[in-house]
Order: sequence, then C-alpha cells, then structure tokens
Amino acid sequence: MSSGYMILSAFFFNPQGDHRMSWRYPEAPTTEIFDLSFYQKLATAAEDARLDAIFIADHVAIWDILPSGLAHFANPRLEPITLLSALSAVTKNIGLISTISSSYWEPYNVARQVASLDHLSSGRASWNLVTSAMPEEAMNFGRDGNAEHATRYQRAHEFISIVKRLWDSWEDGSMLFDKASGDFADVEKVHSLKFEGEHFKVRGPLNVPRPPQGHPVVVQAGSSDDGKNFATQHADLHFAILKSKEEGAAYRADIDRRLAARGRAPESFKVLPGILPVVAKSRSEALERQAFLETYIPDRMQLDLLSSWSGVDLSGYSPDDQMPKLPDDATYNGGRTALDRVRKMAETGATIREIATTLANTGAVPTIAGTAIEVADQLEEWFVSGAADGFNLMFPLLPGDWLTFCREVVPELQRRGLFRTEYEAGTFRDRLRLKKPANLFDSSDK
Amino acid sequence: MSSGYMILSAFFFNPQGDHRMSWRYPEAPTTEIFDLSFYQKLATAAEDARLDAIFIADHVAIWDILPSGLAHFANPRLEPITLLSALSAVTKNIGLISTISSSYWEPYNVARQVASLDHLSSGRASWNLVTSAMPEEAMNFGRDGNAEHATRYQRAHEFISIVKRLWDSWEDGSMLFDKASGDFADVEKVHSLKFEGEHFKVRGPLNVPRPPQGHPVVVQAGSSDDGKNFATQHADLHFAILKSKEEGAAYRADIDRRLAARGRAPESFKVLPGILPVVAKSRSEALERQAFLETYIPDRMQLDLLSSWSGVDLSGYSPDDQMPKLPDDATYNGGRTALDRVRKMAETGATIREIATTLANTGAVPTIAGTAIEVADQLEEWFVSGAADGFNLMFPLLPGDWLTFCREVVPELQRRGLFRTEYEAGTFRDRLRLKKPANLFDSSDK
Repeated sequence: MSSGYMILSAFFFNPQGDHRMSWRYPEAPTTEIFDLSFYQKLATAAEDARLDAIFIADHVAIWDILPSGLAHFANPRLEPITLLSALSAVTKNIGLISTISSSYWEPYNVARQVASLDHLSSGRASWNLVTSAMPEEAMNFGRDGNAEHATRYQRAHEFISIVKRLWDSWEDGSMLFDKASGDFADVEKVHSLKFEGEHFKVRGPLNVPRPPQGHPVVVQAGSSDDGKNFATQHADLHFAILKSKEEGAAYRADIDRRLAARGRAPESFKVLPGILPVVAKSRSEALERQAFLETYIPDRMQLDLLSSWSGVDLSGYSPDDQMPKLPDDATYNGGRTALDRVRKMAETGATIREIATTLANTGAVPTIAGTAIEVADQLEEWFVSGAADGFNLMFPLLPGDWLTFCREVVPELQRRGLFRTEYEAGTFRDRLRLKKPANLFDSSDK
Repeated sequence: MSSGYMILSAFFFNPQGDHRMSWRYPEAPTTEIFDLSFYQKLATAAEDARLDAIFIADHVAIWDILPSGLAHFANPRLEPITLLSALSAVTKNIGLISTISSSYWEPYNVARQVASLDHLSSGRASWNLVTSAMPEEAMNFGRDGNAEHATRYQRAHEFISIVKRLWDSWEDGSMLFDKASGDFADVEKVHSLKFEGEHFKVRGPLNVPRPPQGHPVVVQAGSSDDGKNFATQHADLHFAILKSKEEGAAYRADIDRRLAARGRAPESFKVLPGILPVVAKSRSEALERQAFLETYIPDRMQLDLLSSWSGVDLSGYSPDDQMPKLPDDATYNGGRTALDRVRKMAETGATIREIATTLANTGAVPTIAGTAIEVADQLEEWFVSGAADGFNLMFPLLPGDWLTFCREVVPELQRRGLFRTEYEAGTFRDRLRLKKPANLFDSSDK
C-alpha cells in the first residue's frame, strides 16, 4: 500500500464525458461546454471533495480524417491552458493538469505558460506531456504526417530537458529587488541554457521566475516501452491503462525496475490507472447504463474508429467481417497501445463489430461500476494491493458522473481513511508527496 | 471628433509601470507581481472605471544581450495569455488584449488560445499581433538572429490570414447537437483551410467553435510603412506613437487613405496613441516626479539602451560623445521607429547622454501631466480634434498611477460626456463600435 492517501484526478477530454458519444445522452450539456461556468461548477465540486487534480486531455486537431468523425463526434472544445488558467482564479487548492503536445509547440512558449500558471495558481500547475500521433494534427503544423514514434520521443526528450532548465533559469536568491543600488538581479544566479540538440536550439533564460513548485508536476501517459522509459526518466505522475489490479502490480514492479535504473526511488513516481467510475443504485443498473451508451455509436463510426486505431481502412468491410491483416509494430506510426488491443482481440477471431464495440468507449480502461460503496470497495482493493497510487477518473458522463462521484464515493473513501478530508498546506507537488526538485543550475555549493 | 466615447486601454509591459526603472520607486511592488491578486486589483479598478481594455505587451525573451540589462532591468514577469485567462474569470466587461508574436508561435495554437479566451470571457479576447525584433528572442527559437523586417511582415501576413480562417472554421449553425440522430455537425458548414503559403501549411478546421466576437479584436502597433499597411489590412485597433495632436491628425489622414485603398471605412479602424498619464496636485509636481524617475537609470544602462535602439555598440563611448554613424534603414533589422527617433536627435547634435535620457523612458510617447482636470483637458483636446479615437494609457508607475487615473481622471471625463458611465451590452468588439466580421467561409448565400 502506498503511504498516505490515494490520489484522485478528475479527467476529461470530451467535456460531455469520456464516452465518445456522451454528447447524445439526454442530460448531456450542449453549448454550455463553451462557457467557463460549466467548468467552474465541476471544479468547485472537485475542490469541495478535496480531489487532487483536474486533468484535461487534448488534441491539436479535430478528428475528421474519417468522414463520420466530423459528422458524429463532438469535436469543438476549449483549449486547456486558457481554461485551466481561468479556473486557477476561482479555485484555491486543486491541481491543474494541462495536456500540451511536445510535437507541435516550442519549448520556450510551453515553459513560460506552465511556469506562469504555476505562479498564478500558487503552485498548482502541471503539464501532461504528449507526443502527437494523429495525422490531422500533423497537417495543422506544416507536415503531411507525424514524425515516426521514435523521433517523436527523441524530440520530447529534448523538449522536456529544455523546459526544466528554463524553469530553473532564475535560481533562488537571483532576484534582488535592490531599489537603492538599482541591482535587480544577481547575474551569477541567472542562467542561460545555450542548449543545442538535434531538434532545438534554445538560449534562455526564461523571462518567468522559477515556479513555486520548482518544476510543475510532469505527467506522462505513454505505456509503450519508449513511453515507460520516458516517463520514468522525466515524469512525476504516470497515467496508465491497466485492466486489473494484478496487471497493476506487475506494471508497478516493471516501473520500479526502470526507476531504480535511473537512481530514482519508487515514491518519487506515482502511477494512476485510468478507470471509468459509474455509480448507480446497483451494479447491474450501472452496467446497464454503460451498455446503453454503446448504442449511441453509429455503425459507420464504429468501423471508422477501428480503422483509426488499427491503421487499416475498413470502409469497404462489413461490420461482421473479421479484421484484415494488421500493420507491423516496427513500421506502425500511430499509437501502439491501441493497435495491440485490436491485435489481441483479432487473434481471438472476433468480428470487426465485436472489436469496435468492445474498444469503442475508452478501450481498455476498466469500468468500476456499482453503488458508491461497491465502487469504493474496488478502489480500496486496487490501492491497498499496491497496484495504484490513485486513479485517473474518466467519468463517462459529465457533469453527472463527476458530481455523483464527489458527493457519494469520496465521503465513503474519507470514512475509510483512504482519502483526505482537508487539503494539506503547500503546492500540488507537496500534496502528492513529491519532493521539490533541486535547481539544475544550483550554484550554492560552488 | 470620433462618434461615441473615447476608448481607454490600460497598458503595461513592466508590471511595475511603464518607466524602465519603475521597479526602483519606493512604492513599487516586488514579488507580488507574480501573484494574481496584484493584477486582480488593477483589473477591478479598471472595470469599476469602465475602461475598455487591459493591454499587456510582451517579449519572448529577457533583455540581456547588453550586460546591464540583466543586472538592472526587471526582466521576469508573467505570461500574458495565462494571466489574461485568469483575469477573465474575475472580470465581466473589460477587454483583454494579449500580445503574441507571429514570429515564434504556430498559427493553430494562437487561433485556439485566443478563440478559447474569447469563449471563456464571453467575447472579450483581443490579440496584439507583433513581429519579434530582439535578437534575444530569435535565440530562444532556434535562430541566431531574427528574420529581416520584410520577411517578418510576410510571415505575419500569412499568420493572420490563417488565424482568421481558423476562427471561421465553424460557421453559424454548423453545430447541430442533434442527440436523436447522432448528427453533431452539419459537415457542409465546417471548413478546412488547406492553406499553403511560403511560411505555413495549415489544414484546419480549428477545434474551437467560432469565437463570440467572430474575430477577436486584432491590434497592431507597427508604425513603419510596412506596419501601417499591415495594420490597415488586418487590424481593428492600432496603437500609435504620436508626439502631438497635430501629428495625430496627419497620421489619421494617412491611415484613412490606406483604409480607403482597402475599401475599408474609417470607423472600422480605431487609432489609440500611447500616452504617459501623470496625475499630481499640479503640473509641475507631475513633471518633477517624471524627471525624478529618470535619475533611476544607471549611466551604463543609458548607453546600453541607446546601443540597443540604434544597433550601434556604444560601450566604448563616453556619454558625452556625439553619436557615431547610424545604420541605414535599408539594411537595418531592428525596430525602425526607435532608430528614426535616435537619428532625429543625433542630427541636432545631441550627445549620447542627452539622447539616451530623452528616449530612455518610452521614447516618443508624450507625457500628459497635471491635475486630473488638466489631464482630462488634454485628452479631450486630442480626442475632439479627431487625432485619436482614444488612448493607450502607459502608466509610469503601477499600481499607483493606474489607480489614480481610474479614481480621478475617468470621473472627470465621464462628467464631460466623453466616456461611458456604464458598460454597454455585448462584446468587446461591440463596445468599440466595430462590426462583427462576416465568416470568410460563409455559405448562406450559395
């Protein structure tokens, strides 16, 4: 069991909820998803429940390569940095995790915005670093397709190395504010990077002081081998896709080996599996509602989704056909995890419809369904077994499932001593029991 | 006289005020410039006074090529988009003008963040488009120096053309939210750009719906010939540097000719000269305080500042020497306006110290000093003469001068019927009496 409380992060990509067609639910929000008040209500509920963080996923494109995407998917949404910055002004304690693509941003701009948000929020900013894999994203940034998987990670590696050094530009004590002498800065304590790599050349220093957290909490979600190596080298928090607590225990052991190879202690790295929490009057009612949501996915969209995950154009197939040959891992340029999931189901002889229906929600993320007590039971089991430091809560329907979880499941976890009843003092990093990093330019012992 | 009220925009780059050494003033803020509460207090005062906008200038670098910059200049600050997004949550009516460099951002990211801020603020976002001219900025983005002046404007031209089309991706009526049929979007009304230019290739559509203002208000400040052509083609609001109301009248006539050549009406383009408003018990007291601020600039910094504006290294000179030969306009790659100002003074035989002292504040922006009534008199004269649609208020000291202006000058302008006493309904664009642009992809008459 991890020391301290479980970590609870409330996640969304679609503001209607984490089911791809959640916008069709009768109570689903419509145009209010473009208003701050919708998110302020979610944030207030999360903060009243003492949750650790709000986690916003992101793509830098709409999903429209396949025609059904544009017609049926709720593509437009707000941009996470602006939204979380606005929320920073109307919240006090909750962490603010923003997804930003290392593929299509400049490190100097990312370092500034995340550092600035960390100041504005008194130490609550966090960056979920992603590499972009959708062809639609590449085409919004001057390319015909994305860089290949390994290159994306090489770029991400340079990117995060630069950003951390930019955050460290201004050492503690570097700002003198000496009004009498006119010396604003101790020039010995302000650092240029003079970084020159394969992908970037950045001089620095950053024009924002060192963030209150030192380094805002870095989140990384890739679960390929490259992804796990990257995460255990650079990240603090890891969003994982795990089917069971047994898989979680094995995953944690693998992560700990990778951490040890980097000289990192296990407690410096928190693993949060994604779950779909569904609370209802009974487990069967909860599962029924989930099954009902699947009926919202038009056939054409099921085929298109599966085409997108497998890299194979299925538009000429019937949903009752079996999957054609899948691309090789070695040459495949999309997300590996999705392809693996398709491959495993295809090998069992499942039809296209069966695979699509199974994966069409959020794929392999387990549904944790039942009464509030049953959901709390399952979270406790995962947590106590050491398979998870907490959970990334991917609510199928917003705002309903989010509000219900806060109102019904959190008090039950608090009663069991598994979750905080008041926010601890300090920053987001402090509340996650992660150490403030030393300054990479620290000259104090010179 | 422009129809309607004068436009008042409260500006800052240094959060300590618009004098370069304002941080040395005894009442100047220190580390509180990194806290939201400092800006919230300014924003609240501005909104209580019914000002049109908060305008934040920006550079994507610290100013440190010259050694005295790093030691003496208050370089670290917050990033404008995150700061204005936070302020959007704690204000209701004021416009939020963020500077963003077209030289070192990607159009898709800028379009998203500004559109998202426009939604979050219910139509109050505005983008001050700048091209970056400092070598320190270039070196944070993989270059050894900035692109030359003309290339920067060519890139900016493509940039704004792309951003406006991205804002228009989702036509009115394109989002159906048809829960029964599963049709989220009318695909005929969602538009890709497929833009391919010399600097950018961007497909679109944007993943944010059309902003409430249609196009968030575009601000442009360049007063070179390229700058004025660019502004009259693309911008709504123009920040100008004008020494007198006579110069303002001539400038306006020149602008109107350029607008006419584009088929634009004069009222579609607002000109705001920058001024330094200083309110005191008397005009002489106000001017004395301004003169006193100049004593804060160390000799070494005066030389360095002038080196930076002229493109000539003056470190081997005495402040009492005359200026050496200046670079030619044709080959000069920095800001033209600053070089022109230096040239004009140098031609009078002024010494380096005299030029530096004169230009060291904000250069050619006029100081409007006196009692609140005297300051209001001067603003009225400029405005009534037609030389200005309003003013960009560059307060020498923050928060003091900002709060004093709101408390003392604005009520005087309101008494004279020159300024609103209540916010008009609508968006920032509406309050500026600027029309909502038609959608560039409008298919309604097809």
